Amino acid sequence: MTTSPQPLYYARHIFFCLNQRENGEDCCANHHAKEGFDRCKAQVKAAGLAGPGQVRVNKAGCLDRCAGGPVAVVYPEAVWYTFVDANDIDEIVESHLKNGEVVERLLLSPDVGR
Amino acid sequence: MTTSPQPLYYARHIFFCLNQRENGEDCCANHHAKEGFDRCKAQVKAAGLAGPGQVRVNKAGCLDRCAGGPVAVVYPEAVWYTFVDANDIDEIVESHLKNGEVVERLLLSPDVGR
Repeated sequence: MTTSPQPLYYARHIFFCLNQRENGEDCCANHHAKEGFDRCKAQVKAAGLAGPGQVRVNKAGCLDRCAGGPVAVVYPEAVWYTFVDANDIDEIVESHLKNGEVVERLLLSPDVGR
Repeated sequence: MTTSPQPLYYARHIFFCLNQRENGEDCCANHHAKEGFDRCKAQVKAAGLAGPGQVRVNKAGCLDRCAGGPVAVVYPEAVWYTFVDANDIDEIVESHLKNGEVVERLLLSPDVGR
């Protein structure tokens, strides 16, 4: 794998799928993805973790792992999560984004795709 | 840094900022970001690189490095690019996404923020 020639601009960068399908197919947006994103953004900010050198909470289009939606991915660790409610988001923020500990119970199964 | 307990679902995951600001401030969307995204998506598909285990080309909201826009970031390497035209995109696809070689001339300067 390529080694980055740059220092990490964000120590952790989490992307939430907020895709809204218009064709009637299921999608993360139908499963409270936006609420999860908003909660994460607010909690990261409240914890003083937001910004360069720290954490960025990002909107994303379809991450193409819809069967496990709503989903989010944390880079550079490439850890994929599925979440249900605000408690799940709070645990991801406190455990992973703040302290670097992966939340095992919320990991997306490796075989989950579209 | 946390080590991922999961295999990489995508070997390389590139996110394009497609943010459109509505308040008159400058943004990636004003600098052909969507054309870059579309080109990248098409070239990755044409090269047979798209999909799990390979490359995912993703839409993203504001990556908050607007001063260097349009920007894109490749994870898990955390390599940030700025691009101007289709030639730049093609080089990122061929060099980095396909062969793992960072395109030095298109790297976003580390001090570029919002």
